[in-house]
Amino acid sequence: MALYSGHINKLIEELAALPGIGSKSAQRLAFHLINMPKDRVKRLTDAILDARENVRYCKECYTLTDSDVCPVCANRNRNHKMIMVVENTRDLAAYEKTGRYEGVYHVLHGAISPMLGIGPGDIRLKELIERLKGDVEEVIIATNSSLEGETTAMYISKMIKPTGIRVTRIASGVPVGGDLEYIDEVTLLRALEGRIEM
Amino acid sequence: MALYSGHINKLIEELAALPGIGSKSAQRLAFHLINMPKDRVKRLTDAILDARENVRYCKECYTLTDSDVCPVCANRNRNHKMIMVVENTRDLAAYEKTGRYEGVYHVLHGAISPMLGIGPGDIRLKELIERLKGDVEEVIIATNSSLEGETTAMYISKMIKPTGIRVTRIASGVPVGGDLEYIDEVTLLRALEGRIEM
Repeated sequence: MALYSGHINKLIEELAALPGIGSKSAQRLAFHLINMPKDRVKRLTDAILDARENVRYCKECYTLTDSDVCPVCANRNRNHKMIMVVENTRDLAAYEKTGRYEGVYHVLHGAISPMLGIGPGDIRLKELIERLKGDVEEVIIATNSSLEGETTAMYISKMIKPTGIRVTRIASGVPVGGDLEYIDEVTLLRALEGRIEM
Repeated sequence: MALYSGHINKLIEELAALPGIGSKSAQRLAFHLINMPKDRVKRLTDAILDARENVRYCKECYTLTDSDVCPVCANRNRNHKMIMVVENTRDLAAYEKTGRYEGVYHVLHGAISPMLGIGPGDIRLKELIERLKGDVEEVIIATNSSLEGETTAMYISKMIKPTGIRVTRIASGVPVGGDLEYIDEVTLLRALEGRIEM
């Protein structure tokens, strides 16, 4: 579209490539950015570059964090023998928000999806197996209740069962097809309390 | 919200301050940006900074553009005696997209809104009056059909009438309360053809 000048078109193009931003939103955003005070624009671009540059994976649970070990894993008051497996950092944050889960996490960064060609080797499963060699009493699987999430849960369950470690799945209080990060805290807690043996 | 690490929180905060981006979208966007290849992140932030730095107002019609005079105003084949008044550059682009308007534009960058405290002095009206001193035969008012757009249209009409220059308003083919940039080209053209004397 050559409706706008070069710089504007370029910006609209880059914005429209982001997830959840359509061509109209990209146009609105572009003009908003062009009209924003220069120091605020700089703050935004700095925040993007700083985050991209400095955020890394926690060496224990693989969540995205600023330090080598994330605050949850670094907290000695958490129960390190209980590991909740989630698909991503946003899902971890959703459970942290309840303020009632006392164990630690393991972030897979994805779920098994034969359709999308994502296999067990493409998510952080090897790292989970490695952690189970330590002193672990329970693995709570809190992947989404989507097809991919359930497939991943089944896979992990089968993988861990032989080790004798307790494997549980958060209860079906989470609506089928629902995405963990959009669910209210009460439902998340109910799902945690009602977790069942797999 | 201290759910995420410093850099991530900072980024989410900056993103959530943009229009149309809620807290959940900001989180999704943040993690998308953190996981994007570094060169693509750089391209995005460069596009933002370049646009903010280089885009300026056209000296004639005040649309946002890369050069001193925008391509429409610089085009000798356009009818410079016919000026369409629009609220912003996106609305100009909407009419340009029809490919059938042969006049030039005047971009107000806003509309009169007593509720928001935006008066005639806060939009580019002085500049419009200045342009009318030249050889102008018709001013087509294409502000939105919102309360603010109609107020602005009335104001401009009353202001220009005494000069003897023809003042028209695009027809009510544009749905009441509608935003010009979201309307299909056929409706936009019909509105242009059906314009009436004010």
